[in-house]
This record gives sequence, C-alpha cells and structure tokens, in this order.
Amino acid sequence: MEINLNESRQVVQQAKAKAIQLNVNANIAVLDTAGHLKSFERMDDAFLGSIDIAVKKAKTASLFRTSSANVGEYLKPEAGTYGMSATNDGLVGFAGGLPILKDNEIIGYIGVSGGAVPEDLQIATAGAEILNQIQ
Amino acid sequence: MEINLNESRQVVQQAKAKAIQLNVNANIAVLDTAGHLKSFERMDDAFLGSIDIAVKKAKTASLFRTSSANVGEYLKPEAGTYGMSATNDGLVGFAGGLPILKDNEIIGYIGVSGGAVPEDLQIATAGAEILNQIQ
Amino acid sequence: MEINLNESRQVVQQAKAKAIQLNVNANIAVLDTAGHLKSFERMDDAFLGSIDIAVKKAKTASLFRTSSANVGEYLKPEAGTYGMSATNDGLVGFAGGLPILKDNEIIGYIGVSGGAVPEDLQIATAGAEILNQIQ
Amino acid sequence: MEINLNESRQVVQQAKAKAIQLNVNANIAVLDTAGHLKSFERMDDAFLGSIDIAVKKAKTASLFRTSSANVGEYLKPEAGTYGMSATNDGLVGFAGGLPILKDNEIIGYIGVSGGAVPEDLQIATAGAEILNQIQ
Repeated sequence: MEINLNESRQVVQQAKAKAIQLNVNANIAVLDTAGHLKSFERMDDAFLGSIDIAVKKAKTASLFRTSSANVGEYLKPEAGTYGMSATNDGLVGFAGGLPILKDNEIIGYIGVSGGAVPEDLQIATAGAEILNQIQ
Repeated sequence: MEINLNESRQVVQQAKAKAIQLNVNANIAVLDTAGHLKSFERMDDAFLGSIDIAVKKAKTASLFRTSSANVGEYLKPEAGTYGMSATNDGLVGFAGGLPILKDNEIIGYIGVSGGAVPEDLQIATAGAEILNQIQ
Repeated sequence: MEINLNESRQVVQQAKAKAIQLNVNANIAVLDTAGHLKSFERMDDAFLGSIDIAVKKAKTASLFRTSSANVGEYLKPEAGTYGMSATNDGLVGFAGGLPILKDNEIIGYIGVSGGAVPEDLQIATAGAEILNQIQ
Repeated sequence: MEINLNESRQVVQQAKAKAIQLNVNANIAVLDTAGHLKSFERMDDAFLGSIDIAVKKAKTASLFRTSSANVGEYLKPEAGTYGMSATNDGLVGFAGGLPILKDNEIIGYIGVSGGAVPEDLQIATAGAEILNQIQ
C-alpha cells in the first residue's frame, strides 16, 4: 500500500505541530515507498541547507526500508563500507528519516531537518506515527 | 518580500482545488523568489515524471522573473539561443510556471505539471492569483 | 600570456559602464584562457538565470578560442553535430561570449548575459576590446 | 535586505587589501543571502583549486546562516552526521566563510580560499566586517 496525499498531509501537519512545540524551524519531506517526493514543506526561517538533508534522510530510509540512523550504522568509518555513503546520489545516515507505518506496514517515509538531531528525530517520529495511531 | 508557509499553503490549496475541478492529477511546487523549494504536493496518481517538470517550471520562472511560457519564447529553435535550455540544470519553457503576486509584487513562484499544458496553466494561475485577490 | 586581475577588473568595469549606458542589468564573467573563473559581477536586479549563461558563454568561447556565436554555428540543428551542445557540461552558442585581446593575442574570455542578445554582445564587446585599445 | 553590487565590491576590495597585506593569493567570493553568486575575484597566482573552495565556503555559510567553521562542527567524524558533508552539492566546513553584516543584519556571505586556513579567515573577516563598521 502507498501513502496517499491525504495521509501525507496528516503526517506533515503532525510533524509541523511537533516542530512548533519544540520551537524548531524544520524542513519536512514525505516520500512514497519508491523514494519519490509526495509532500514537502519548509517552515519559515528554516535553513536552506536543510531542504536537501530532509529529503535525503527520507530517501536514505526508503532505500533500505529502515531509519536513516540505522543506515548510518553502516556508514560509520569503522564499518569499512568504503564509498557507500556516496552511492544513490548521497546517503544521509543520521536521525530524522523514518518509515511511515499504517496498520504496521510501511507506506512511505518522512525526513526532517532543521533542528538539533534529537529534535529532528522527535519531529519525524511525531509524523511517522500518526497514521498508525489513528488506525 | 518572500512568501511565507501560510501563504504557500493557500497557493497549493487553491491550485489543488482547480486541479480537482479539472479532473487532473497534478504535481504542484512553490518556490521562494530565489528558487528554493517552499511547498510541494503530488496528487494521487500524478505522473512521477511530472515532479521534476513542476519544480523546473517554477524554477525557470524564478530565474527570469516571468512565466515559464515567456522563457520558452527564448528557447524555441528559431530563437537561435543554442544551448540555453540546458543551462541552470535545465530550463523548462512551456506553460505552468508563474510568478506568485501579492500586492502586485512577486513573492514566489508556482510550477504545475500533470495535465495537458493548458490545464497545467489554469491550475498554476488559480494558485498564483489567490494571494493577490484576497489582499 | 594570461589576463591578470588588474586587466580583468578593467574588462569588467568597461562592460559594466556599457551595460549602465544601455540600461541593462547584466551578469559579467571573465575567464582565463584555460576556462577558469577570474572575475565575476552580478549587477543589481540582473536575472539569476543569467549567472550560469554568462559563465557558459565565456566558457564556450574559451573552449574553441572564438566567440560563443561562432560556436553556435556548429550547434545549429542543421549542422548535424548531434550531442555536441551537451558536451563540456553544456555549451552556450549565442552572442555574448568573446575572446579578450591584448596586443592582438587572446589573454582571456568574457561572457555577458542579462539583456537582449544584441545588448549582451555590445556589453561583451566593450569589455573585450578595452585592453587592446589602450595598449 | 540583500547586498548590492556596490557593497559587494567594497567587501571584495577590503578582503583583497588584507590578502595583499598577508601576502596571500586568494580567491574571494561574495554570495547573496540565498546563495547566488554576486562578485568573485581570483588574485594572480591563486590556486585554481581554491575557486570552488571559496565559493563553497560562502555557500555553506549561507545554507546555515553562520560561519563555515561553525558548520564544520557538525561535519566532524565524531559528530556522527554521516553523509551530511556531501549534501547540498558538497559542504565545506572549515574557516573562511562568513556572513556579511550591515546594521547587524546578514545581507550576504563571503568565502575566501588560497592561504593557510587562519589567513583565509583573517581575509574573510576583513571583508565581512567592512559594511558593519562604516555604517
């Protein structure tokens, strides 16, 4: 099953609400399971440099069907995965990219960038969980 | 003045309403005046190939502060501007990219792709004009 | 002989003076004979899309040691040079890119974009000729 | 507020004066707040490899509205931000990229490369501060 636009809007709204609560100006991207952009919002005063990071966190998550932080475990220098981080037009392996679940199935991916990494993760988590919670 | 997220959402909503009315599955992108992505939505069943076209119509409009169709006049083979269309990572010179006006000042750009070109233009126009009308 | 920064500044200044006279907001790029950027100025309100065009006109001229318009003769559809325009990261084959002469020797290249093509050519010509005239 | 060409020229001149004083052959780039090139000069005998570094230091500063050195704190291996440095077409996270202030507001960014890193920083600082000082 693929995320539809109505669901994607709910994910973005929920993430944005959390960002406002944390006082973070975030970039929020939602991709489908194939890694194509579905929804995007740049909050006012969010860093321009975080547009690409938000999209690539979600893209990285989609490419390996897990969180961007989990992919990061394979990108650490000590992992010995020489050249991996530059594949797929650049992987981003730190927190803020998550699968979006509905009925415990992955239907899309969210990527958030703009705050400190733990904040980005909180914002992404708020968005990623909303569809699963309300079902 | 730069478009803010609230305004950008109104532009997308208005364009989407027009797309629904025309029975078109559209990709809708809003950029700031410097060409950076502000909002994006891909309607359900919209072509994947139109994601990039929507963004590049808006980008092309932003690069020359006019409609993508106007830029297209300079990209016609008979214009003799050999190679111009491949500059700036690729210009898109047909209808569907427009400046967004507020108080008759450009505050951003919209790009729409997914339907026939005249439909894309109608959808973009609906979005581009909403902030100017309500002011 | 290679253009030095002092000479490059004179070229830009002269081109800018002509642009002001023509009431054009131009992007002006000067490259050395190897095609590397030496000087650049974007006049206020010049199109953002013309930054890349100005640099690529000069680059195109440098790659074939002639004007960008002359290169354009080889880029016309009827020239049958399939794929040539996309080589070298994109050639730009219309007027506004010229060799800079000193003592009738090429020491660099200028590229101008922002006005109508004949205006860009006038501006580039003013810059390209200043070092030859004053020697 | 955006830097204008007259101001941008003052920034470059001041940075160049400092580079001459330090006996450094520098590349000096000035971007607007959205990261688009406004002015550039390559001093005679400056490294060709420093053209891109100068531009990317300024670009990196613009993307996160701080110094390139501050961004570098987030690019250190121990920061765990795997892949971040390759986002945005490549971030450059060491000293020499700075916001340009006027009336204590950021109106653009300067990037300098060509000398030792502390020299680049001194040169960039000279340029970055001139508009704030004379206001």
